[in-house]
Amino acid sequence: MSGSTFGELFRVTNFGESHGPAIGCVIDGCPPGLPLSEADIQPDLDRRRPGTSRHVTQRNEPDAVEILSGVYEGLTTGTPICLLIRNTDQRSKDYGNLLDTFRPGHADYTYWRKYGLRDPRGGGRSSARLTAPMVAAGAVAKKWLHQRHGTQFIGWMSALGEVAIPFEDEAQITQNAFFAPNAGIVPQLEAHMDALRKSGNSCGARIEVRARHMPVGLGEPLFDKLDADIAYAMMGINAVKGVEIGDGFGVVPQRGTVHGDELSPDGFRSNHAGGVLGGISTGQDLVVSIAIKPTSSIHSPKASIDRHGQPTVVQTHGRHDPCVGIRATPIAEAMLALVVMDHALRHRAQNADVVLPMPPIAGAA
Amino acid sequence: MSGSTFGELFRVTNFGESHGPAIGCVIDGCPPGLPLSEADIQPDLDRRRPGTSRHVTQRNEPDAVEILSGVYEGLTTGTPICLLIRNTDQRSKDYGNLLDTFRPGHADYTYWRKYGLRDPRGGGRSSARLTAPMVAAGAVAKKWLHQRHGTQFIGWMSALGEVAIPFEDEAQITQNAFFAPNAGIVPQLEAHMDALRKSGNSCGARIEVRARHMPVGLGEPLFDKLDADIAYAMMGINAVKGVEIGDGFGVVPQRGTVHGDELSPDGFRSNHAGGVLGGISTGQDLVVSIAIKPTSSIHSPKASIDRHGQPTVVQTHGRHDPCVGIRATPIAEAMLALVVMDHALRHRAQNADVVLPMPPIAGAA
Amino acid sequence: MSGSTFGELFRVTNFGESHGPAIGCVIDGCPPGLPLSEADIQPDLDRRRPGTSRHVTQRNEPDAVEILSGVYEGLTTGTPICLLIRNTDQRSKDYGNLLDTFRPGHADYTYWRKYGLRDPRGGGRSSARLTAPMVAAGAVAKKWLHQRHGTQFIGWMSALGEVAIPFEDEAQITQNAFFAPNAGIVPQLEAHMDALRKSGNSCGARIEVRARHMPVGLGEPLFDKLDADIAYAMMGINAVKGVEIGDGFGVVPQRGTVHGDELSPDGFRSNHAGGVLGGISTGQDLVVSIAIKPTSSIHSPKASIDRHGQPTVVQTHGRHDPCVGIRATPIAEAMLALVVMDHALRHRAQNADVVLPMPPIAGAA
Amino acid sequence: MSGSTFGELFRVTNFGESHGPAIGCVIDGCPPGLPLSEADIQPDLDRRRPGTSRHVTQRNEPDAVEILSGVYEGLTTGTPICLLIRNTDQRSKDYGNLLDTFRPGHADYTYWRKYGLRDPRGGGRSSARLTAPMVAAGAVAKKWLHQRHGTQFIGWMSALGEVAIPFEDEAQITQNAFFAPNAGIVPQLEAHMDALRKSGNSCGARIEVRARHMPVGLGEPLFDKLDADIAYAMMGINAVKGVEIGDGFGVVPQRGTVHGDELSPDGFRSNHAGGVLGGISTGQDLVVSIAIKPTSSIHSPKASIDRHGQPTVVQTHGRHDPCVGIRATPIAEAMLALVVMDHALRHRAQNADVVLPMPPIAGAA
Repeated sequence: MSGSTFGELFRVTNFGESHGPAIGCVIDGCPPGLPLSEADIQPDLDRRRPGTSRHVTQRNEPDAVEILSGVYEGLTTGTPICLLIRNTDQRSKDYGNLLDTFRPGHADYTYWRKYGLRDPRGGGRSSARLTAPMVAAGAVAKKWLHQRHGTQFIGWMSALGEVAIPFEDEAQITQNAFFAPNAGIVPQLEAHMDALRKSGNSCGARIEVRARHMPVGLGEPLFDKLDADIAYAMMGINAVKGVEIGDGFGVVPQRGTVHGDELSPDGFRSNHAGGVLGGISTGQDLVVSIAIKPTSSIHSPKASIDRHGQPTVVQTHGRHDPCVGIRATPIAEAMLALVVMDHALRHRAQNADVVLPMPPIAGAA
Repeated sequence: MSGSTFGELFRVTNFGESHGPAIGCVIDGCPPGLPLSEADIQPDLDRRRPGTSRHVTQRNEPDAVEILSGVYEGLTTGTPICLLIRNTDQRSKDYGNLLDTFRPGHADYTYWRKYGLRDPRGGGRSSARLTAPMVAAGAVAKKWLHQRHGTQFIGWMSALGEVAIPFEDEAQITQNAFFAPNAGIVPQLEAHMDALRKSGNSCGARIEVRARHMPVGLGEPLFDKLDADIAYAMMGINAVKGVEIGDGFGVVPQRGTVHGDELSPDGFRSNHAGGVLGGISTGQDLVVSIAIKPTSSIHSPKASIDRHGQPTVVQTHGRHDPCVGIRATPIAEAMLALVVMDHALRHRAQNADVVLPMPPIAGAA
Repeated sequence: MSGSTFGELFRVTNFGESHGPAIGCVIDGCPPGLPLSEADIQPDLDRRRPGTSRHVTQRNEPDAVEILSGVYEGLTTGTPICLLIRNTDQRSKDYGNLLDTFRPGHADYTYWRKYGLRDPRGGGRSSARLTAPMVAAGAVAKKWLHQRHGTQFIGWMSALGEVAIPFEDEAQITQNAFFAPNAGIVPQLEAHMDALRKSGNSCGARIEVRARHMPVGLGEPLFDKLDADIAYAMMGINAVKGVEIGDGFGVVPQRGTVHGDELSPDGFRSNHAGGVLGGISTGQDLVVSIAIKPTSSIHSPKASIDRHGQPTVVQTHGRHDPCVGIRATPIAEAMLALVVMDHALRHRAQNADVVLPMPPIAGAA
Repeated sequence: MSGSTFGELFRVTNFGESHGPAIGCVIDGCPPGLPLSEADIQPDLDRRRPGTSRHVTQRNEPDAVEILSGVYEGLTTGTPICLLIRNTDQRSKDYGNLLDTFRPGHADYTYWRKYGLRDPRGGGRSSARLTAPMVAAGAVAKKWLHQRHGTQFIGWMSALGEVAIPFEDEAQITQNAFFAPNAGIVPQLEAHMDALRKSGNSCGARIEVRARHMPVGLGEPLFDKLDADIAYAMMGINAVKGVEIGDGFGVVPQRGTVHGDELSPDGFRSNHAGGVLGGISTGQDLVVSIAIKPTSSIHSPKASIDRHGQPTVVQTHGRHDPCVGIRATPIAEAMLALVVMDHALRHRAQNADVVLPMPPIAGAA
């Protein structure tokens, strides 16, 4: 209840702090018989890992995952899978000052007020480092969903600050440091980042993530709608301030004549809904966008107070990560996979016996 | 687990269908000793009620609430509060055709695929009518939060289709059919709606909702972040396709120099964050925006299929509600109140003993 | 969380007080397509109903159930089923005195200390009357389990006070007021009850309940063991003070040579385990026994205090129910059915794809 | 949902298998500011540890606990506490035969049928070794409850096989290998165990566990009654087949004149109820008894089948633990502490504002 468990049937309990001995998670409820080893998980962790380009934080952690339980002779047993990632780059440092001061845009003030104390080392529990175990858990969900339903997850950056990134070529996503589906724009993105880093400033980003080959019928009608759970998952990622499904805020000026996706024997004719109707998956692609705020730790000084209420100034020195959104793509994919996985199990718990006279219709691009 | 219960400690279980005998909810976990009668709940239900102006659906339901349990001699007892609303406007009608056809933009196809059957009467469980019990439950949460913490909830329409509604005067919200905080724009909104109704079309809307006088420290750090739970609650409202906290998607092109809200002994100097840092309330106003899609039932014909996969055409006749967003304001307020209420109880369960050396700092407008 | 919801996937939320307007429950998660009407539920309610013989409380309530939602054209739709039972025998009465005094053996003192106030009318929420909605929900579970898995539930009284009731003939259970599987002992039970009633005293009882034709594999290994959830369900029934699975407390002096049930190609050779190994069903009969304490409301005076801490004396007049255990059999059956139902859904959520080389082996009597 | 998480607000998620790399748990929801180090936890682990006398299993594990998260500078931070215990005594062994055969009285058959595969090494997840993380978590709960409410937990063996152990002197419990509150009976217990071990047989045991200085008002009235949650916790311990609260099965022949505990200004006059009325704590001692079955692994051959359904014989060689009940006392204490802890938090979430005119009355011995 303290908010460290995600999901109902495929449950992931996350633990750890940025600079403690280790971070990790326990996955409970994974179906048995899934082939699983560290090699299935490490690639997604590596995509999220810091230090992979000059455009992201230079903290250098291998983020090597160890499976502590739940797998026997290479197969999941149906019992909890504990994934452990040891922290290795815990520079010893004097946190005395940080402990006293609330950094603007960070969770320092709110943690302190909530708990009366906080772990200041690298942001403690509020660090984005805690998304690593979710990426690991998401890799397990992805594997099962792909094996069982053919579902695939893919994400990309659609805007870096004020630079829109037109979707051109999916194959490019893995070819640059930005997860940009567009080779031509990469030099502009690099220049944008270099300028930001030089000025000690930061910017936001927009990420789009999709699930393809979705099972139909996932999501519960009233509260645990598939889109509601996706919104919960996405807004829970560090620095996210907005979530859209399908046309998102674009629906405000739309007309009903445009929005409602028509059906035909060949499938849906459009996908304004983003793959969800009434909270339940249509079988079309899930289409999700998120907005990520600019990094709060910048080189410009900002006014703040200390924990005695006295005014002070906060300024970040050294390591600086001008756009936390760059590494958000694998995180968003993982969170989407975890939502879909949970609902795949929930759906069959209730509806395993449903038989219908016709197969699902096709989706629309 | 079938998704009809909202909240962890202040739990609301919703039941009913649009045209069944009754709708309602059971609130479990309400603190004891709260003065409560139907008169505390009915006003919010009346704000959501259909038929109150020519701009909303003409279905005519009194939506009279009855308290069936949990209150003794005018005080909550701490045991479940069952709220019942009898359905009274269930026109007898031949649903045979509707049962066979999947209306574009509605949940007909997805319900049918999920469950193998569905209640077609007025949308059954997928009807926005099921938000009424949440508005009722929200009224209970609002009352307790106001009495205990002074918290208040207020919402308004900030855009109707392509018409932006500048915030001018909060007092105007109750003075027009649109929940518009701006008297001067009302004639334009009326003309917009009349034209839509005449053309048989529909449009989307944007609603903003705020919580004021917020307790500090609400929200759990990792998954059950206050903003994540708000996103879940809002995206779960019928027809919502986007959710923003604070600056929302406006953060994408922002710079870190702008975004991070500075602190001073007099309080926060801005509220780009929308009242949440690291998933925990800062004490500033919660600032939430949602996008509502255009009504799917319109007078223009749309292509679809029937449940044997054969092509057909769907066209709505009679009753027509050109913008479902108009009645969404009290719903969004209620859902926000339910999230805050739940977290108020969750917070004190864990942290009731925390003592701090200084009081919370003030928020920023 | 306030403890009024039972189950994880087949969730029953109970509401109401003994003398409020109504009691009832909401069942969420029921599989769709189950034929269901009030006629499926009423018979079990009638078995639990007061006033059916001179040996149970003379309160006269028809306990007529109304289905308010979740059923369309005679089939469950997969959405919440609200079951409502109006209270009809709420004698107007002056509760002033009762409100001030804590009846020994009742929940008066504990409710008052927990909530600071309580509904004194007929015990309010602590009344055994609140088991009626569970009996109703149990009837739904029983029907689905029987239709889907052939599972059946049966219970009987195995001791009334100091009178042991040897199991002789299952067909007799429905033929007497005691749910006794033994015709010959009925006169002795009647005499026992008449004497108790005459003396204004009360006694305990022992009930045994079984599930037959159990699916194999139900129950989660660590905490939500099938037997642990059964113990939770049974100990939660009013007045229950002990729960046994299989040989129960008889295992203390047993030897391992006796206890471990041997397996053979023809099935298990004994059932000391009561149908559960490692928390998971073996396919043998579930065997459960419970101990029910003597009714606390008796005609003899007992010392107590009032809510100002002053000494007083409590004595029940009028209506008197010398053994609440008599009506416990259908309640225990219902609770067992609810546990099995929940686990049937939970099991297939995780393990629907498991394929094994041989069918389950047979159970042992 | 797969049953590896215990508790609602003080949540313990358990992971690991008997012979995997490690076992452990994640405690979520612990109040912040509690002084905590490994030294607070290790003593209870040592009490449960194997190999401490000739009467328990000779497996030799130090069971050294490591705190991986949730503690900063010696204080809990309110974030998840991960406790890790590395397995060190994993003898390499050929499990080929064990994997094929279902040991009578063990979970081999049920795990295999549930999951389609199982980890046979030392019983895998079904091993009583998985109670070690619960003992560790229980130590945290005990510390907080003692510091905050003065509550204490104590357990002892009240019967070993057919040998009843009269309660004489609490101080003796720590002075013998049996947790027996009676010095005089120890030689008889030792002789009993030596005979069993010699004959290769096993026996059951009865354990009593109590909570003293209980807060009043803990427990939820309908399902999550304090006694129901205790029954769930106790029946979930490996090998437990029966649970009693207060007089337990002794209530069956009792009369109401005896059972109902009278109240007086000086406190309750008796404690037949075992500290719970209507599911809510009275402030008296919680009194709980459990029955533990005889160890299933014995030296006598037993009939069984293999996983192809063919008849076979199972016989344990080597290590043999004639009464698993001996080490159950610290486990039962820990589980009781976890239930009380969870309800302490749940209670104040809802009822923190309740003010009463008089203090709780005293309990009865």
